[in-house]
Parts: sequence; C-alpha cells; structure tokens
Amino acid sequence: MKTFRILATASALALAGAATAQLAPGADPKAVEAAFDAGVSSQDQLDWLRQMSSAPNQVGSPHDKANAEFMLAKFKEWGWDAHLEQFEVLYPTPITTTVEMVAPEHMTLGGQEPPVPGDDTSANTAGALPPYVAYQGDGDVTADLVYVNYGMPADYEALARRGIAVKGKIAIARYGVGWRGLKPKLAQDHGAVGTIIYSDPDDDGYGAGDVYPRGGARPEQGVQRGSVQDITNYPGDPLTPGIGATPGAKRLTRQTAPTILRIPVLPMSYADAAKLLARLGGPFAPTGWRGGLPFAYHLGGDGAVKVHLAVKSDWKLTPIYDVIATLKGARYPDQWVIRGNHHDGWVFGASDPLSGNVAMMSEAKALGQLWQQGWRPARTIVYTGWDAEEPGLLGSTEWAETHAAELKAKGVLYINSDSNGRGFLHGEGSHDWQHLVNVVAADVTDPETGATVAERSRAGVRVAAFDRLSRAGDTELAAAEKGGDLPIGALGSGSDYSAYLQHLGLPALDLGFGGESESGGVYHSVYDSFHHMTTFDDPGLKYGAALSKVVGRLVLRVADADTPPQRFGDFADTVSTYLTQVKTLAEDRRAEDRKRERLLADGAFRLAADPLKPVGAAAAAARTPYVELAALEDAVDRLQAAATAYDRAYADTGAKLDPVRRDRLNAQLRDIDQLLLDERGLPGRPWYRNLVYAPGRFTGYGAKTLPGVREAIEERRFADANDYAARTAAVLTAYAARLDQARATVEGR
Amino acid sequence: MKTFRILATASALALAGAATAQLAPGADPKAVEAAFDAGVSSQDQLDWLRQMSSAPNQVGSPHDKANAEFMLAKFKEWGWDAHLEQFEVLYPTPITTTVEMVAPEHMTLGGQEPPVPGDDTSANTAGALPPYVAYQGDGDVTADLVYVNYGMPADYEALARRGIAVKGKIAIARYGVGWRGLKPKLAQDHGAVGTIIYSDPDDDGYGAGDVYPRGGARPEQGVQRGSVQDITNYPGDPLTPGIGATPGAKRLTRQTAPTILRIPVLPMSYADAAKLLARLGGPFAPTGWRGGLPFAYHLGGDGAVKVHLAVKSDWKLTPIYDVIATLKGARYPDQWVIRGNHHDGWVFGASDPLSGNVAMMSEAKALGQLWQQGWRPARTIVYTGWDAEEPGLLGSTEWAETHAAELKAKGVLYINSDSNGRGFLHGEGSHDWQHLVNVVAADVTDPETGATVAERSRAGVRVAAFDRLSRAGDTELAAAEKGGDLPIGALGSGSDYSAYLQHLGLPALDLGFGGESESGGVYHSVYDSFHHMTTFDDPGLKYGAALSKVVGRLVLRVADADTPPQRFGDFADTVSTYLTQVKTLAEDRRAEDRKRERLLADGAFRLAADPLKPVGAAAAAARTPYVELAALEDAVDRLQAAATAYDRAYADTGAKLDPVRRDRLNAQLRDIDQLLLDERGLPGRPWYRNLVYAPGRFTGYGAKTLPGVREAIEERRFADANDYAARTAAVLTAYAARLDQARATVEGR
Repeated sequence: MKTFRILATASALALAGAATAQLAPGADPKAVEAAFDAGVSSQDQLDWLRQMSSAPNQVGSPHDKANAEFMLAKFKEWGWDAHLEQFEVLYPTPITTTVEMVAPEHMTLGGQEPPVPGDDTSANTAGALPPYVAYQGDGDVTADLVYVNYGMPADYEALARRGIAVKGKIAIARYGVGWRGLKPKLAQDHGAVGTIIYSDPDDDGYGAGDVYPRGGARPEQGVQRGSVQDITNYPGDPLTPGIGATPGAKRLTRQTAPTILRIPVLPMSYADAAKLLARLGGPFAPTGWRGGLPFAYHLGGDGAVKVHLAVKSDWKLTPIYDVIATLKGARYPDQWVIRGNHHDGWVFGASDPLSGNVAMMSEAKALGQLWQQGWRPARTIVYTGWDAEEPGLLGSTEWAETHAAELKAKGVLYINSDSNGRGFLHGEGSHDWQHLVNVVAADVTDPETGATVAERSRAGVRVAAFDRLSRAGDTELAAAEKGGDLPIGALGSGSDYSAYLQHLGLPALDLGFGGESESGGVYHSVYDSFHHMTTFDDPGLKYGAALSKVVGRLVLRVADADTPPQRFGDFADTVSTYLTQVKTLAEDRRAEDRKRERLLADGAFRLAADPLKPVGAAAAAARTPYVELAALEDAVDRLQAAATAYDRAYADTGAKLDPVRRDRLNAQLRDIDQLLLDERGLPGRPWYRNLVYAPGRFTGYGAKTLPGVREAIEERRFADANDYAARTAAVLTAYAARLDQARATVEGR
Repeated sequence: MKTFRILATASALALAGAATAQLAPGADPKAVEAAFDAGVSSQDQLDWLRQMSSAPNQVGSPHDKANAEFMLAKFKEWGWDAHLEQFEVLYPTPITTTVEMVAPEHMTLGGQEPPVPGDDTSANTAGALPPYVAYQGDGDVTADLVYVNYGMPADYEALARRGIAVKGKIAIARYGVGWRGLKPKLAQDHGAVGTIIYSDPDDDGYGAGDVYPRGGARPEQGVQRGSVQDITNYPGDPLTPGIGATPGAKRLTRQTAPTILRIPVLPMSYADAAKLLARLGGPFAPTGWRGGLPFAYHLGGDGAVKVHLAVKSDWKLTPIYDVIATLKGARYPDQWVIRGNHHDGWVFGASDPLSGNVAMMSEAKALGQLWQQGWRPARTIVYTGWDAEEPGLLGSTEWAETHAAELKAKGVLYINSDSNGRGFLHGEGSHDWQHLVNVVAADVTDPETGATVAERSRAGVRVAAFDRLSRAGDTELAAAEKGGDLPIGALGSGSDYSAYLQHLGLPALDLGFGGESESGGVYHSVYDSFHHMTTFDDPGLKYGAALSKVVGRLVLRVADADTPPQRFGDFADTVSTYLTQVKTLAEDRRAEDRKRERLLADGAFRLAADPLKPVGAAAAAARTPYVELAALEDAVDRLQAAATAYDRAYADTGAKLDPVRRDRLNAQLRDIDQLLLDERGLPGRPWYRNLVYAPGRFTGYGAKTLPGVREAIEERRFADANDYAARTAAVLTAYAARLDQARATVEGR
C-alpha cells in the first residue's frame, strides 16, 4: 500500500507539472489532490491580499463592492458559474461619534486612529469609518462613569454587593470574556444610559507582546470596532429575521427590531480609557478586575468622572454583495458542498477577513484549474464570498434565509473560514465530520516544521499541557497523547456558519490556523493591514496556502465521496460528554445553592466582610432542583449504540455499495444533521433551532452545547430545563433512528 | 454550665474594675482572664507605638537600643524580673550603595525614599539606612541586565529554554513567590555577577490597592529592604552557627561564612525598575512573567541595557540587645512558657515589628498586674523582646543557641508574634497545640464584628471559598463548614520561632491578625510608619488589643494548666495528610517525568515551538523512582493510633490526675516535640533538625513538611529520600512510643 501511495504521488506530481494534463472523471483522488496543490500559490494570495486590503472595505464602501466584483471576475476567469447576489440591509453608518470627559476636567477622546510608521495604509484612511460599533442605539448622554470589568452577569452581582449601580450612568467595560455585544446589552438591562467598551492592555496590548509597529500587539491608540447587534437572538439584517432581505421583503422598523440596542455605545483605545479610569473614585475594584493600566482600578459611580457620549448614525438601507460561484456536480448535482468566507472588513481587513478570503480564492483557482483539466466533482461545489459579516453575519444569513428550502434540500456541508494566521490548525463544527478533518490534517504539511499539520497540532496540545500554558481538556490531551484524532470544538457564533448550522441545520465546519500570529492586536482596527498581516501574522502567507490545502482536500473528498464520509461515533461520544457536563453543572449549582443558603443563614457574609471595604451578602436564590434527564440519558445511550453499530457496519462493507444502496445511503445521511433542529427553536430565540449547538446567550461567540437544557439550568429557568431535556431527547432519538435506517441500507436489509 | 460562665464573667468584671482586687493562687481561671483583659489597652499600645516608631530603629541604631531599654524599664515597672542580654554579631552596615543605568543612557537610580505628605517620619529619615539588603556580597560590577521573573528555579529553566543565561550578567528579579534571599542566591549559582530585586506594582503596588498616601499600597518610590542571608542553611549570626555569638565565641570569618552571598545585591522601587525594564531587548517574556508596569516585558541579556551596581558595607561586629523578662512559676518553675516578638525594624518599623511588639507589651503589663494582685503562674513565663530579627533572626537565634541546654530542659512552648494587622486571626505552628489555639480564638471577641475571633475566621474561609477568592484547602473549608477547629498552618521561617522549633525542637506557635490591613504595601520601607499603621493597618490598634487577649489566654492556659493541654490526634492527622502529599508528589513527578521523556522522544518540543519565538525542549531528567515509604506509612499509622488512644484516655479522666501522675505526665509530654529532631539534621543543612517542619530550601519562609523526604523528591536526591523516609519514620515512632507511655500514666498503669 505504501509503495502504491508513493507511485500515485509521483504520477500526480508529473500531472501537476503538465499544464495540458487531463483529469478525467474517475481520476485517482491522490492525483486530483496533487494537481489541486499545484494550483495553490502563496504569491497569488499575497497579490490578492495587497489589492483587496489597499482601501477601506467596510459595508457600503466603494472598495468593498469593488472587492466583490474583483472576486466575481476571478471566479469567472477560473471557470466558475458565478454571480453577485444583492440584498438591502439596515446598516447604520456613523455620522458623528463623540466621547469626552466633562468632569473632573474636560478632555476630548475618541476619533480615528493615528498613522503608524511603516504601515502605509494607516496613513491613508480616507473613506474609513471612525471607531464605532454597529447597531448601538444612537443618543446623546452625559453621566457618571462606572467601571464594570468585563460587563458580564457576575460582574453586576459583584457591583451590587458593593452597593454600586449603573442605573442612569455610563458603563465602561473592558473587552474580553464575553462577546462584545453582551456588554452594552447587559448594561442597558441594568439601566445604564450608555456604554464604552475599551481594550485593556493586559488582555489586548502590551500584556500580549510588543505593540505595533515594534511588535504585533495592540498599540495604545488602537480601537476594536465591531458589532453589538444581539446576534444571540438572531443574526443578519435586524429588520428581516428568518427571511431574506430582498427588495420586497416585509421588514420590521428600526424601533421594533429587537436586535438593535437602545443606548449609545462607543469603543475606545486604552490610551483614552486610561484618562477616564485613572480618575474614577468609589471603591477599589475587586480581585480579578484590575487590568494592565498603571494605577489602582476603581469602580467609580461616585460622580468623580462624568462623560459625554453621543452617537448619530445614518440608518439607511444599504446594498450588500455576496459572491456566489458554482461548479456543477456530475453525479449528484443536487447535493451541494458549500464553502464560504466573508470579504467585508472593518477598515482594511487584511487579516479579518481577507487572509481567509484569499486562501479560499486559491482553492477556487485550483478547483477551476482541475475543472479545466477535465475533472468533474460528483457533487456540486458552491463557493461564496459573503458581504456584511462584520455588522452581524448579514450576507451569509440573508442568503441562507432566502434560499432556505433549497439549501435544506441540497446542502451536504458548509465549510467556513475567516481570519487565518500562523501556527496550529483549529477546527470547530459538527462532530460527525471530526474524523474527516483529522484525516485531512494528516495529509497536509505544516510550512514551518515539515511535520504534518495533525502531528504539529498534537505536539502543540501536549507541550502546552506539559508547560502548563493551556488547559487542554482531558479528552483533547488524552487524544493527543495517543496520537489519535484530536477533538474539534463546538461552534457558537462569530462567523458565517451560523445560519447554516443553527438555523437550517446543515452540518458545518470552521477552520483556520493560529496560535502564533498576532492579529488579535489589530483586530477590527485601522492597523489590520497588509503590513501587519505579512509581518506579524503570516509572513509570505505560507499558512494561507496550508489552509487552502486543508480546506481544498475537505471539499474534494466530500464532493467526490462515493458514500458520506462522516463518522457518527465521534458525534455520539461528544454529545455524551456534553450530557455529562450538564449533569455536573446541575450538581455544582445545587452544591453552590446549598452553600449560599447556609452562608446567608449564618450571617457569614457580614462576618467575613471588611467594614472599611464593605461587600454585601450574595443575593438569595432558589435551590437548583433536579432536572428530568432520564429520557435524555436514554436518548444519548441509544445514539451511541446506533452510531457504533452504523460505523462498524460501514467499515465492514469497505464502503463498497451497489449504486442503488449507495444513492439511498447518500439520501439518508445528507440531511441527518437537520434532525437536530426543533422547529420551536430555543427558549426566547426561535431563530436558533439546533438543540446540540448554539451560541450562548451570555457568551455570544462561545458555544453552548445542549443549549436548551444547559442554559435553562444556568439561568434558573427550570421548567425550560425539563421541557428541553425532553425535546433534546426527541431530536437525538430521531437522529439515532435515521442511523438505524442507514445501517439497514449498508447491511443490505 | 452556661449560667455558671455568665456568673464567672460578671464576677471577673467586678474584679477587673477593682484596682485593689486580689487574685490568690488557685483563683478561678475565668476571673484571671477577665482581669488580664482589663489590663490590656489599645491606648497603651498607641502610646508605645508612637514612641518606639519615632526614629529609625534598625540594628545598631541608637533608637533600637533605646527601644530595648524602654522595654526593659517597662517590664521592670510592671514587676517582671528583667534584663538585657547582649550579643556581638556580624552586621554589614552599608557605607555606599550605587545603582545606575549606564546604557542605553545614563541614569542614576536608587537612594533613600522621598517624604510623603501626611507621614511625618518619612520626612525625617536622619539615621536611617538607604535601601539595601543585609548580607549581600559587596562588590562593584557593570554588566548586561537579564529579567528573571521571580528568580526561582523554574524561571531559570524557562530562560534556558529561550537561550538566555545570566552568567556574567546582572539579574533583575521581582519580589514574590519565593523568599527574597533565594533570588540572589540562585542568580549567583547561575553565574550572575549582581542582582537587583524590585517590587512589581502588580504584586505590590497599584495592583494591590491605592498607593500611599491615598491608600496603603506601595508607592512607586517605595523599596523593600530585607535580609538575603541564606537562612535556609542556618539563621542567626553568620559567624557562629549553632553557638551563641557571645564575646569569646569561636567565629567563622566573613569569607568562610556560608550564609553570606558573594555578589552585590540591591533592592529597587518600581519607579526605578520601570526605567530599566522598559528598555530591555531580547525575547518577549513568557506567559506569567509580565508584571504591572505599562509595557511589554522582555528578557534582556542582549546588551541593550547595562547597569552599574556597587555596594560597600562596614562589616563590623555590632552589639544587639535582647530583652529577657521572667515571672517565676509557683509549681513548675523549671517549665518555661516562652513568648517573643522582635523590636528591631528596617526603618521606623511601626507595623514590622512594633505592632506585634506593643501587643506583647500589653500582655506583659497585664500579666504584671495579675502578679501584683497576687496571682502566681504554675509555670515560669518568659517574655522576650528580640533584637536583630530583620537581618536574619539573630537575637532569638543567638539566645536559643546560648541557652540551648536549659531551653531544651525547660521549654514547654514558644509563642511568637511579629507584625499585626486588621482582620482574621492566623495561626501556624506545632499541630499538637492546634486545638488550644482554636479554643482561645473562640473566647476572644473580634473588634469589628462582635463575633468571636474563631467565628469570624470560619466565616472568612467559607465566604472566600464561595467567592472563589482563595483556595482554602479542602480540609480547612470542610472544618470551617462543620464549625469545628480550623487547621493551623505549618511554620517555615521568617520570624523568631525558627531556632526554637527547628533547631531545639520546642513546639512553637506564631499568631497574628491580618487580611484587611495594608502593611504589605510599606513592608520594610520608610513608609512603615505610625501614620500608615494607624491609618491603613489597624486604626486605634483594636486588633493589637485582640492579639494581646488571644496570646495572653494561650500563655495563661499553658502556664497554669494542670496537665499538658495538647491534643495529639490533630498532630497525627496533620502528619498523615503530609504523607499523602508526599506520595502524591512522587506520583505527579513520575507522571511528569514520563511525559517529558515521551515528548523528547517524539521531538514534540520542536514541533510545538514557534520558529519566530523559539522555545527549546525541556531538559532531560531521570525518572523519579519509587521511594521506600512503607516504614514511614507504618509509623504514621502507629502515630495516629497512639494519638487517638491517648486523647481518648485523657478525655476519659477529665484531666483529673493525682499529683504524682500529674507530674509524671507533665514530664513525659513537656519535651515530646523534641523527639521530632534528628541530630544529623536535614541533608546539607545540619542546623535544621526537625523532620516534620522546616523552611523550604527553595521557598525560604514557606514551610516544607516532612522536609527530609519531600525536598529530596523535589530535588531528585533519591538516596536522601529513602534515607530520610526511614529517619522520619524513626522520629515519629519515638513520638508514638512516648504517647503510649503518657497514656499509661493517664490510665494509672
């Protein structure tokens, strides 16, 4: 077998070298992949990146549209059937943004980031928007400032115990821990009249490394823009939840759209934030609240610092441009493998999103060359360049909602990427596809070490654990030590897979390299530039090419697979660990509730408090009851049994099925992940229908798995917990039943 | 019983109010304690503190001697038999201290700390020594600077993996994690020619709170002085290990004294350190190495920053003055309860040591009043005011060494205090005395809450755990939740109990309040002043009075006890947990060794490393073998059985023994803790003879329990591990055998 592989590779190299070589349908897959690799070029990616990041390309900008047209032209040139698809979305373009200290002294803050030596585009920001956050509420307020740490629910509990409220005040939160949009949402829920979000240098500045341009970390004037739309309710155009934002669509008004905030919000650099925070009075900030600025952090709220915050936006409908390109499948034209990356940035967007976008373009060019050499995929391949991801996944969501029926009827898998960097492959997504990701990672060479991408990942997990630099999960570390498949993570939100996975139910993967790049330091700022990207993130875009090779292999193997390449045991085992986590969560909560009850009964909070720095008692809370989990446990058991049986039966056949059974199996498994949806959706957010994967209501980007049950326990909605335990059991039982049917097909019954 | 107690208290109060009341021998102990309490006064303590901290009182200063004479006069006034005992010790008084940056630019650093508004003594530092560290090596060096984080062994491993050496260079380490003296010692061992130790603001500055004088935390010019004598080898006068530094004593020379460093060392403020660290080149500091200064920390060592460091001291013999005061016991004059606190400071020393010292003086005054009212203790009470603790526990060590035979023959218990503050009682020491500490803490009222000191401590442990602010050990938390005795900690070094516990084998306790005071922020600086102490640490010295009441009760109860008030089950159970820790340590080390071996064999370090920020492989190390622990396990089992049986037998008698058996029991148990000594001492440091408690060689102040075995495993001295497992088994077996004898006495056999 080994000899055969060497021969195959040699012949593939010969083929790749010959421009006129033909790849007939049925060509050796190894030869096809070698020819694909030959079409991937870091130099191409550098050229495209330089061009696409040469001017501000935020939604509505001329260069963003020009980039869509550039991609369209390229796809066509490479032989794809391509077009632009336009939607009309509500997009608030800032007209004025004002933030100033008015007490104890007057100081104007905010405004565009200054140029940095060596970074040409930073000196050329004509057409760029000032630092702002999309879908904040507009307004003009002057009020006391309160420091709320990361602005998460636990932070408000800590403030309450110290007698500090944000009602009628402006909250200043640092970036981190939870998603950006939750910070002003929670501040608003607590009565704040405005919110500032700043990048603390401990998390994102000199605490991370040398600041730009000496190193890649965030300089003191760098500001993180971003969306504060409530994507945990639904993403996409706020006016058209669940439907495409086409010209004639029935729209909500801005006032009735629930994902738009009501209070003004602005992001801020740490140079500016330092001026405010250094002057705050009130109590000393609790343990864990101090960031990296060189003074004692206080909570404020005592009137010492007053801030004027005003934002006015143009709330117009704006056209956005998705690039849609297709290579039609020869055998299963109605089974679609979908691949996407967005093309809009916040300013120049060299890392986010263009580093991933040019990797995707390399794949498209290489696939186009295969096509021109005669190769025809078994399934249809759809490449997509999304617009308006940054303000809230608009391009991908609107396309998914517009074509929902067709996508549910045809979609096999959605593969996403976004920013790409140097280092280690990370993959998140639907766990029935976990093994395929690992197989592909074992077939691509890491550009820095010459090992395979998979080997490097395993070494990374093991050494980080040995050096106590990361807390790899026990499962991950054990897998790395055994040399087996590394687990992939669960998807929450934060990029364009969301509508596909969580609304339509398609399986999805999100892939990229990272861990050694410093793109975090310029994330969503003016300094996310070609210079930064090619100096600190992926010099020479070698990992850009590696990503193309990883994703290209995934696309080829899924598109050309005779039978679905999933491994369902991985999914079943992962769900089983999620259930264990949920049970542990409930136990931990109960134990904590009992402790709180006893501490309150004993007056222990009063006895423990420092009278000179008073901290009140924790708020009383009902004891977490036992949740009815028996049906869910049974369902997971059944799922594991069905998955194991299917995987074994499939392996026994050696994937050799007659055409009738093969087609039946493909039909049975193409939409199996859609069985994880519940049409009622998650409590309070019906757009999210997937009962295994969701973004957390209080994590934002971060995933919550088995969300109907887990979040209900976390948020003390115990009736929901019981209800969704049953609903989750039902979807997993349906999934298991489908696997039993598929096994019957494999076994010829 | 409760009614009786109330009556007793009422009668005691009446007694206390009557200046002429008489306390005949055999008086109700409750009445004695109430009268004692009446003699304790915060106002006294404030008066004495103001006087004693009014001028610099470091070793050799006129005011230090004046304070000893002041205490002597007071003790005599209160009716004690008191005298000064003088020793002649090597004490290096700085003549010149120089630290300056010579590249990339010239900048003079160091020098005396500037005055602070509101702190009168800070403006009056005539006679104070400049910031320096005692027993550094003198020298004049100019060299590259290398940042070594906390300067602990793991930090040098991390540097080596990054290709950075300190050989021929000056190391700059931040205070924290390990003891001060280990930092230059390890730097010297690695070939450094000099060391700077600075206070990083993250650990000790604005990271801890508002800086002085706005708050109590360390201001940017504050410097921590201290000793860098190698006290983990032996403390006390470096020239007279094991013997008293009396005029005619045989002395080592300065050159042959192993506890004196060979390289120059100076401490530094963070204002000065920032100037050096901000300019360092070389690699970015590893995760966890960054402190609170507002820039990216680098490792240096690349020649970018050169420092000139020079120290010249007067290495003369200096007289020191211990205050020794006695109240002679009526029944057992040759059984001594010893109580001590030092009186020398680094500058004004208001918190360290005078806050503890004035609490001790209150006890002495109150005991003197009892004496004058006719009370006579059953045992002799010895109160000691130590000189020269700061440079290395000299006063207490020399007295212990001088009077070793008498102390071993008569000592019952040594009770120590040092700085005292506001908050929670902490106690460390010999675990056979743990229950008594808890009993006493349950009898003293916390000044802030009105609860008992014990109740407040338990609430503190429980709430800190609930709020995830501290990692109380499971044992401690469980004890606090049950409402039972809180465990006391183990003693390492850092105050005057060391010679008594670890060299002579007397049981020892160290007690104080803390957790709410901010004395850490001025520790060993000019700002440790009356103003700081009474503003931020213990306003009104209410906790000074509480400490007097806690320790006074301990002294009274031990001095007047019919039979020894120890509970040996606490000791046995604690030793059993230490043995469990040692076994876990060995297992963890073996697991880590196996992982390292496999990572090296797989080349995983190379694969995991970022080629642009290279980190080399961990150094290979032999696998940790299994240690022969069976005999030690048996000994601990036997100890637990003997202790349980003794405690039960003792409880059954209700502590009622006839005089012969009572005297025999006292004789059998008075020196039982001395059985924990091994005359050979610990490996490489024979002065330390206690095989249960020792300061860690690589923790300094921090204790290592079962040190012969534990440190041998940690330091890969596996032959020592087996040897000391057997030796430790032997001392514990002797201890158990003595308990069996004592039980026979109790049982009348």
